[in-house]
Amino acid sequence: LSEYRQDPILGHWVIVAPERAGRPHAFEEDGPVRRAGPCPFCPGHEAETPAEILALRDHGAPNEPGWRLRIVPNKFPAVLPEAAPLDGREGLYRRRKGFGAHEVIIEDADHAATLSDLPAGRTAELFEVIRRRFLELAADPRIRYVVYFKNHGKAAGATLEHTHSQLLALPLVPNLVRGEMARARRHYRRTGRCILCELAERESRGARLIFASRGALSLAPYAARAPYETWIVPRRHQSHFEAASAADFEQLAVALRATLRKLDRALRRPAYNLVLHTAPLRQPALPHSHWRLELIPRLTRLAGFEWGAGLYMNPVPPEEAARRLRDAAVE
Amino acid sequence: LSEYRQDPILGHWVIVAPERAGRPHAFEEDGPVRRAGPCPFCPGHEAETPAEILALRDHGAPNEPGWRLRIVPNKFPAVLPEAAPLDGREGLYRRRKGFGAHEVIIEDADHAATLSDLPAGRTAELFEVIRRRFLELAADPRIRYVVYFKNHGKAAGATLEHTHSQLLALPLVPNLVRGEMARARRHYRRTGRCILCELAERESRGARLIFASRGALSLAPYAARAPYETWIVPRRHQSHFEAASAADFEQLAVALRATLRKLDRALRRPAYNLVLHTAPLRQPALPHSHWRLELIPRLTRLAGFEWGAGLYMNPVPPEEAARRLRDAAVE
Repeated sequence: LSEYRQDPILGHWVIVAPERAGRPHAFEEDGPVRRAGPCPFCPGHEAETPAEILALRDHGAPNEPGWRLRIVPNKFPAVLPEAAPLDGREGLYRRRKGFGAHEVIIEDADHAATLSDLPAGRTAELFEVIRRRFLELAADPRIRYVVYFKNHGKAAGATLEHTHSQLLALPLVPNLVRGEMARARRHYRRTGRCILCELAERESRGARLIFASRGALSLAPYAARAPYETWIVPRRHQSHFEAASAADFEQLAVALRATLRKLDRALRRPAYNLVLHTAPLRQPALPHSHWRLELIPRLTRLAGFEWGAGLYMNPVPPEEAARRLRDAAVE
Repeated sequence: LSEYRQDPILGHWVIVAPERAGRPHAFEEDGPVRRAGPCPFCPGHEAETPAEILALRDHGAPNEPGWRLRIVPNKFPAVLPEAAPLDGREGLYRRRKGFGAHEVIIEDADHAATLSDLPAGRTAELFEVIRRRFLELAADPRIRYVVYFKNHGKAAGATLEHTHSQLLALPLVPNLVRGEMARARRHYRRTGRCILCELAERESRGARLIFASRGALSLAPYAARAPYETWIVPRRHQSHFEAASAADFEQLAVALRATLRKLDRALRRPAYNLVLHTAPLRQPALPHSHWRLELIPRLTRLAGFEWGAGLYMNPVPPEEAARRLRDAAVE
């Protein structure tokens, strides 16, 4: 029922997904997200979600309590595995059937916990599980890219409070990823270096560094689009998230957890989006491309200027944001 | 103090504008916008804004009551005319001084009026005045593009309720405009036609048409990024907004007003962004490029998927949105 459509003038792709209009609070701009629980993501309510794809359990059978992390198909999927991945043209217009997969990762059994509350070991385990899904989804040659993202809080687009993130497996490589890869390739051809390696080296000391673990840096990007935008960059060069090692994920988890706790402290637990940028599936290791996490607190709203011109206005200089986060003491 | 910065990996430009952090409610995601008035944009409060650049008055002297429309410099400008438009590089990073102009158009003296309340003649007059500013700003060869946009309502990024829109005159052509122009040029080279002329012709009958005046169409774009996104397209080919005639603006105003009233009716006065897309200043008339207005109701929030992949998810098919708006009766 859903489909991908490309705008002939602006070039972007949209997933037109009427099923999504039915989800709770889909249009309640000012509706409540906070609910005391229990909710469909709570233990004992497993029947309210589609059957699980994967779970990490301490005890219990599938779709029963006893899990500490659970992956289920999205109940209101934007795209579906059973749709034929057909490509079509209709005069000016390009469309594709809404083929793909849309999954929800319930990150903890506790309704009240947030990702920043979990110990770093649990966050590393989360990345391990996401990697496993990347590899499983990549087995279908029709899937070309997986977007992993998290919406935390109402201002960030979350419709349920219980801590969770999402995977969207797509038959196309998003334009934004294509553009990023093309820029990185040009830089590599010109200089022989990975641009993110160069950037991480430069930022590993200086005014925009927020936190450093042995294996990963948390930094305010030079051209941050929004106040307190933060990138978490593995120090080791690697184009594909799914090629990372358990040790890489441990280091990433330490940096992510420290950053989230600093944000919680400095900005009073803000809403945020977390998104993974990585290279398209099933390519060989690329010397120019380097995966990373983007963390965008949602303190301001995008307005006409951003929609109309694709330009951003940021009232908080990244150097000032980094200083405040660096100074925020967390255990 | 403000500056333009380009991200070396993603390619976008950001205006880092610390002055903007001081404006009222800049960070109050859930703070109130509605105020009974009077406000700094109300008659009798002219001293609370910088001195006017231009006004349409029925009586009175500059910066006194008696006006029906007033243009003033933004009190919290993102960019400034006195900054040197210097271009700089610093290793990976590109920056420019925050040169430009940032103006506010107060569209009516009445604190409670909205753009959809004004008669079409007043809206045509608004476009005439914007055209005048385009031509005046274009006299400075350092200004390469003017973004005209309106944020209506808190969810659309407005911080003041009194009806107003904004102009940002920039020393660069936004990437989004460059991309759009490049696509249109390719289409023209391939087919010998303007893509928006072709699109308007096709959409002038059919499932995505919302309203038609003699000179302009209001339509739901095929790949609408958000529920009820609407484009208002002049039927006559013209690359530059500032080259339009008074008759063109009258027709545009009729279509815009009808569309806004339909939105108010169908969606209970939603927040929205309105943005003008036009060709860069001082170019000759272009056969491939065609100006238009984009109107984006803000009913849903952008989430991690949009930030991370530049893809959009729209739960309302454009054909259904167009039908609902077409059917919404307005005088």
